[in-house]
Amino acid sequence: MGTARSRLLAAALDLFMRHGVSGTSLQMIADELGVTKAAVYHQFHSKEDIVEAVIAPALAELEAVADAAEAQRRRNDRLRVALEGVVDLVVRHRGLFAMIMTDPQVGRLVRSRPPLRGLEERIEAVLTGPEPDAETLVNSAMVSGALMVAGLDPRLAGLDDETLRRHLTATVFRMLHVRRRATS
Amino acid sequence: MGTARSRLLAAALDLFMRHGVSGTSLQMIADELGVTKAAVYHQFHSKEDIVEAVIAPALAELEAVADAAEAQRRRNDRLRVALEGVVDLVVRHRGLFAMIMTDPQVGRLVRSRPPLRGLEERIEAVLTGPEPDAETLVNSAMVSGALMVAGLDPRLAGLDDETLRRHLTATVFRMLHVRRRATS
Repeated sequence: MGTARSRLLAAALDLFMRHGVSGTSLQMIADELGVTKAAVYHQFHSKEDIVEAVIAPALAELEAVADAAEAQRRRNDRLRVALEGVVDLVVRHRGLFAMIMTDPQVGRLVRSRPPLRGLEERIEAVLTGPEPDAETLVNSAMVSGALMVAGLDPRLAGLDDETLRRHLTATVFRMLHVRRRATS
Repeated sequence: MGTARSRLLAAALDLFMRHGVSGTSLQMIADELGVTKAAVYHQFHSKEDIVEAVIAPALAELEAVADAAEAQRRRNDRLRVALEGVVDLVVRHRGLFAMIMTDPQVGRLVRSRPPLRGLEERIEAVLTGPEPDAETLVNSAMVSGALMVAGLDPRLAGLDDETLRRHLTATVFRMLHVRRRATS
């Protein structure tokens, strides 16, 4: 059951990325798995349920990143933990973030759900701190854009995770003046 | 005639930003201007023609930026001129870039046209230089994302052009290790 579910989610993500969510039907997912549409319905009642299940693991990881960052006392450490965590997520879930960014239907669905909206706000609050000035707001917005598009650019598709992670981290640290070491 | 045309384009951009291109009809543009749909047809034969006319001035400016950057001999000056020019464009045409980024129909239309695709490639070539390594590719992709999303973030909507321009420029310079002064 666990295996069937994870195979279904992997097939769905693959189809979503190739055809968009609106261009993917439950029948296409069933065909991809070599099962009947009824078998897909047995596990998920709608395409929206499948989209939610596809993104759920990344959401849980993002929540853990927010928890870890908020637990830091110093501003540099909060920024460092949040940025390292988000970079790691973006690198390991490149396809997923590309889908969320480029598929308008997924973007709307994801952003309309309280868990993700709340999570985005928590990460943003860590990045800007309380009562941010204009420079901090601009830099924080730029970091979001820089990380999202980095997962989409076809010129980066050939880079291995470790290389991409290292350069993304170095640059977002530079953008926000973050020191690399934990402050003690 | 010139005035009627520019009023039509301003009304169209406003409607595109509020309703999306696919949600805007020629009739809506006519209503907004208080003219008949025939009067709109007299100037533009399709919505695509209007979209092209709306983005044409920014494209011409982007071409001038590419020309000016390519005319610099030193790498630091090429980067500096390209980044200052693109930042200025993004700041002055915030609404337009938001539309290009968020409206899938506009994005497809814009990117399918040779002039813009060629321009994007020219700017990218200036940013990365010949035979870029992984770090340069990652940073260049991040700059694109950082500048695009900066024009979209609602938290930045209240910033005046000069403030936004100053912070965007400082941060993209830092991302790409660009020195502020012309090299002599």
